[in-house]
Parts: sequence; structure tokens; C-alpha cells
Amino acid sequence: MISQKWGKLIRSLQQKKYRKVEQLFIVEGEKAVLEVLASNWQVTAVFATEPFLQRYVNDVKKAALIQQCSSDELVKVGTFASNDAALAVVKIPEQQPFSLGLASQQLPAPWVLVLDQINDPGNLGTIIRIADWYGITDIVCSPDTADCFNPKVIAAAKGSFLRVNLHYQSLPELFKHSPLPVYGAYLGGESVHQLQLKQPGGFIVLGNEANGISAELSAYINRKITIPAFGNAESLNVGIAAAIICDNLLRLSNS
Amino acid sequence: MISQKWGKLIRSLQQKKYRKVEQLFIVEGEKAVLEVLASNWQVTAVFATEPFLQRYVNDVKKAALIQQCSSDELVKVGTFASNDAALAVVKIPEQQPFSLGLASQQLPAPWVLVLDQINDPGNLGTIIRIADWYGITDIVCSPDTADCFNPKVIAAAKGSFLRVNLHYQSLPELFKHSPLPVYGAYLGGESVHQLQLKQPGGFIVLGNEANGISAELSAYINRKITIPAFGNAESLNVGIAAAIICDNLLRLSNS
Repeated sequence: MISQKWGKLIRSLQQKKYRKVEQLFIVEGEKAVLEVLASNWQVTAVFATEPFLQRYVNDVKKAALIQQCSSDELVKVGTFASNDAALAVVKIPEQQPFSLGLASQQLPAPWVLVLDQINDPGNLGTIIRIADWYGITDIVCSPDTADCFNPKVIAAAKGSFLRVNLHYQSLPELFKHSPLPVYGAYLGGESVHQLQLKQPGGFIVLGNEANGISAELSAYINRKITIPAFGNAESLNVGIAAAIICDNLLRLSNS
Repeated sequence: MISQKWGKLIRSLQQKKYRKVEQLFIVEGEKAVLEVLASNWQVTAVFATEPFLQRYVNDVKKAALIQQCSSDELVKVGTFASNDAALAVVKIPEQQPFSLGLASQQLPAPWVLVLDQINDPGNLGTIIRIADWYGITDIVCSPDTADCFNPKVIAAAKGSFLRVNLHYQSLPELFKHSPLPVYGAYLGGESVHQLQLKQPGGFIVLGNEANGISAELSAYINRKITIPAFGNAESLNVGIAAAIICDNLLRLSNS
């Protein structure tokens, strides 16, 4: 059973202000809970059904508290429409500002995703999963980008939130003294199919779902890049755009 | 006001069986309703707020019935969490089976997307929007793929459902006598970054979200293709995969 006290705490963690106070967030579903248990992240509690606890008796040992409960209880305190496996309460790890120094010394220079006010948690989660697919280990977000510990972000990111570091900080400050090129996704820039790279690595900036990259940030973009269109759709979802741009830049830097 | 009779009908159109009986579906939101009004699709009724009707007085004239209502009423009968604009009831156009004959004579041969049991309406809508971006005009779906007139598909497709033809039919039958190459998205096939095309055009098969391309259909795949991974994510969402594959194949056929 999930006690009233735990139930209240878990439900509160769907809101950013309580996640900030408690420094905890939730992970739901069989696969994601197993991944977080296998990681070096601190798992405060696992609430799980009997079959899950029987099957993964050794995996769950890592949690400070293990509590058996029903599938209905998991649905009641969590965000999933169905969950016959588990829910974990996990400590939020310390987030460091992205270190320019480190990145500029690395050879070849890394690709770093930069998100300028991405509002939709589903889009942020999708972008984290894409970053992980392309081996991009750091995403720098404007302070007003969706919170990466929102349960919808965690669900959309699958296990990738464990492997990609998110940093929330002032983006103009980040670019002011950057030795790395800054690429920005625009309509009407250079086609990513024709792009020539002088060197691999740099920042890839993606803008807000409705308004694109802010005017303030545009001043720091060295190269405006675009996904060529062959048909009539006006735009692509920002998660889709992130995927296509990463695919092209990684193709170019590995060819 | 939306009468009880219309309210009941509109709500029923969220279910496939009633869409089939009535041969009607719904389009929600300012932009999508304006696009469907500007198309040659038959609009049976438009329910809209006063500001929408004032602003688009000429656009709405095309609808057989125009009815003013409140934003709350639109939310009550529709699927959007908020809608301060409009909802249209639209006639389902006749869907033809995809004609192999036509496609094989076209030069250069077209790219055609083929969906093998895509279940999630959001994924289907995203794929329709991607097809439209890349100028792909036909998508052939297995009969058990999500219904393209589901309100969630229409919402995710933006206006692109007006420009891409969807066909529901037996996929093995489609491939049996196909003169076009059949590409299938797999883990562990040829990298789309290294692919050499003998000719542009062909079928691009995408499989079910959980199980991939069915065993029955695999027999007809001429070339297994893969999105190269540079990191640790296990998989990509099928909409993301569709976008990256289309981007690479269109890049290769236009270079």
C-alpha cells in the first residue's frame, strides 16, 4: 500500500515548485524504473506491484524504501493512464552550469544542443532522447525552458534522461565568449543538405515552438541553417527539426 | 449555440464507427478550420465564436451551415482543451486504393510511405505532416493502422491531411507485383548516411511502434535501412525515424 503521506508527496512532485522544495522527482513504468535503479542516481523509494517485485527482486534492493502496492494505486498517485509495474521517487542530481572551458579544449569539439524557451514537456523529452541517440551529452536550456524533471519529460525521454546532462542558464552569457560556432535553426537559412563544415562541433540552437529563436539570441548565431522542404507543409515540430538537424550535422562530421 | 442534436453528432465523431456511418469527421482550431475552408473538401458545418466569424466572414461562407457558439461549447463537444476559434464538421472524401500502375509510370518514380500497423494517432498525424514537408503525396496504410480521421491525427497533421492521400489496403498485395524497390526501416540494416541509390523513388516501410515490421511483410523488403546511432538510446520514436529516413532519401535523390 502507498501511505497517505507518500501519496501526497508523490502527487505534489508533478508540480515544479514541490520538486524544487523536495529535490525529488518521479519515474514511472517498468523499463524506466529499472533503468534508474541500474544507474548511479539515488532512488529514495520504489512502489511496485507484486509481479514486478518478484521478478526484479535484486534490482529493487538499491532503493532506500521498497513498498508493494496495486496497479490502481500507481495510477492514482502517478501520471500514467495505466501502470502495472512500478514508480520510483528519485533524488534530483546537482546540475552544473555548462562549462565552456571544458568543451573548447575537447577534440574534436562536441556538439551541444541549446534550447531557447522550449515550452512543451513532450518536445523536451523527445529532444533528450534524440540527443542520446546522436551521442550529444549536453543540452543547455534557457531558464524558461520546460523543467526536465516534469513527469512528461521523463516519460518522453525514455531512459535517456540518465545519459544526457541538462543545464539551465543564461544563453547570451553562454555565447558571449564562445570559441565554438553557433548554428541556429531558421526558415530560410543554408540547407543542411548542402552545408560545408570547417570543423565538427558547435552549438545547435533551437527556438520556441511558436516564435522561434528570440531576437536577443539571434545576434549570437554565426550560421543560420534550414531543413530543405520539398512539399507544402509550413513547418515541422521542433522535436522533428532537432532530429533532422542532428542527423545531418553528425553525418557531416563523420564523413 | 450548438444544438443538442449537433452536439451529440460531433461528440460521436470522436469514434471511428460513427465516422464510418456518418462519413463525417471534425477539424478543430483556427488555422486548421481556415485551411479546410480554403480547400475543395466539403464542409458540412462550422461552429465558431463571434470574433472568428467576424474576422473570417468571407472564409466561412463555404460551409453549408454556419453557427455561432461560445468557446466553452467548442471545448465541450470537441477534443481540444481550449478552443476560442472554431470547429468544422467535414465530409470524409472517397479513398482510393493506391494505384501501382500510375506510380510505376511516373518519372522520376515517387517516394511512397507505407505504414505497417502504426497504432498511435499522434504518430500517424506527425508522419502525415512529414510526408507533406518532403513532397510525398501518398501514404499506404495496413488496414489496422490508426484511422486518419481520428481527431488526434487531424490535430497532429496540422493542415497536411489536406495534401497527402491516405490509402488503407493489404500491404502484401501491394508489394506482390511492385516494380518499385521496397525499403524497410530496421535496426541493423544499411546506414542511411552511406546508402547509394540506383534510382530515386520507391516504397518506404515503417513498422509498428512496439514490434517493427511484421514477419509477413519482411519477405517483400528489398533493402533494410537504418538510422546510424552515435550514442546510447535504444530506439527512436517512429515519427522521428520517418522524418530522418525521408530527409536522407530525399537528399540522396536530389543530389
